[in-house]
Amino acid sequence: MGAKVSLIIFLTLLIASCSAKRKPYTPCKSLVLFFHDIIYNGNNAANATSAIVAAPEGGNLTKLAGQFHFGNIAVFDDPITLDNNLHSKPVGRAQGFYIYDTKTTYTSWLGFTFVLNTTDHQGTITFAGADPIMQKTRDISVTGGTGDFFMHRGIATIMTDAFEGEVYFRLRVDIKFYDCWSY
Amino acid sequence: MGAKVSLIIFLTLLIASCSAKRKPYTPCKSLVLFFHDIIYNGNNAANATSAIVAAPEGGNLTKLAGQFHFGNIAVFDDPITLDNNLHSKPVGRAQGFYIYDTKTTYTSWLGFTFVLNTTDHQGTITFAGADPIMQKTRDISVTGGTGDFFMHRGIATIMTDAFEGEVYFRLRVDIKFYDCWSY
Amino acid sequence: MGAKVSLIIFLTLLIASCSAKRKPYTPCKSLVLFFHDIIYNGNNAANATSAIVAAPEGGNLTKLAGQFHFGNIAVFDDPITLDNNLHSKPVGRAQGFYIYDTKTTYTSWLGFTFVLNTTDHQGTITFAGADPIMQKTRDISVTGGTGDFFMHRGIATIMTDAFEGEVYFRLRVDIKFYDCWSY
Repeated sequence: MGAKVSLIIFLTLLIASCSAKRKPYTPCKSLVLFFHDIIYNGNNAANATSAIVAAPEGGNLTKLAGQFHFGNIAVFDDPITLDNNLHSKPVGRAQGFYIYDTKTTYTSWLGFTFVLNTTDHQGTITFAGADPIMQKTRDISVTGGTGDFFMHRGIATIMTDAFEGEVYFRLRVDIKFYDCWSY
Repeated sequence: MGAKVSLIIFLTLLIASCSAKRKPYTPCKSLVLFFHDIIYNGNNAANATSAIVAAPEGGNLTKLAGQFHFGNIAVFDDPITLDNNLHSKPVGRAQGFYIYDTKTTYTSWLGFTFVLNTTDHQGTITFAGADPIMQKTRDISVTGGTGDFFMHRGIATIMTDAFEGEVYFRLRVDIKFYDCWSY
Repeated sequence: MGAKVSLIIFLTLLIASCSAKRKPYTPCKSLVLFFHDIIYNGNNAANATSAIVAAPEGGNLTKLAGQFHFGNIAVFDDPITLDNNLHSKPVGRAQGFYIYDTKTTYTSWLGFTFVLNTTDHQGTITFAGADPIMQKTRDISVTGGTGDFFMHRGIATIMTDAFEGEVYFRLRVDIKFYDCWSY
């Protein structure tokens, strides 16, 4: 009788693990990180971490374009920190690009990678997706990872934590992995 | 005896669910959508939904470059419709960029997101991949999703449904999700 | 007794297959390919396979920018070969873009697709991620595939196999798929 009960428990657990993709979903790993973007404006070469490299007709490379910056592409290599302080010790770099892609509001499209290199985290996390900047929180896809984040996938919730004019902005990124290939 | 048979059936079903990744594959969700791209050419600012923002040496930002537009990057915010009518009520926006990347034929590379916002669909679908434009149908990867498309992956089959000169084109996108994380 | 042992073996195998995502991971498919990039420099139009299409302020489109090429975007359509010989018969094309994204060392961000079209391989493989060029090997994410690589995911290890000045470089790409949806 005891054996039968054990078998039932065992099979129940087995089913649970096999159907791990059914809801409700809880992240298998979470991370909260900040990154800091300082756009080159012609006068801040020493501090700038990003640069406008493409602009629509009539635009230039030291000032974001009119019409909600539509058509600008910026390339960045931004410090990542554990808190919201630009001067905290970086735990890695956020590297990639963003595109301003709407004429009627601020939205961007992001393709970038977190390159983490600390005792806690070694590896990369790659993100892609639309960023409707004016919304308080917005979700983008985590499409891949390497190292400690080998084959991971998930969702990142982005918040604009602060900004100063058109030169500095800080994003808070809540990364939730739902597909972890743990070692 | 009955218990034994039940167990066998039970285990068979269990195995079937565990090896769900074996063929034949049927989509767990499908969508057919159209999007409409009107490239800015210097004279259509009011209607244009996309703009050339980068060009090879000798190119400019109001006319696609020679050599099969090799080297042009366009940024877009295109309306998505349920049918092939540009003037149908949009169900969302296709936002991102395309690159013309061959000198000997028309091919592009796409990175973009469908941002859907209707009573039927709330969420984003992100695409990436090569688009050999001259082929009747071509497949690109659906690399991620959010909202109703939480963690989804799949394949999108793209068809050029219509085009007018170098200013307007309409794409039909048959999205087939094979990895659905249903709520 | 024998039946019991069989059941235990059976269940053990079942668990093993259900928890296939536990380590150690062995690839379900592997490929080693090379691709060859010849950047347009103003004098090599006939041979060039890529072109600079965006540059930071002060840069131009026939010479990679100072400061470790920070801010350059190049678009490419490079031949893929099975060995390290530029003149071997191509098995496909590597199409997409790279961005130089750091001011203090050579790093880039890659978004590209292998379009393979041989008797051995028909389909596409899409890559995205950071490429810290100065490291001997670096891993990027394989975010999707089509055709023979339907829904595949994996990791690609990139090595700079050779380079000549700022005009030619050859990358060796060891692709390891860990998620194969075999037909």
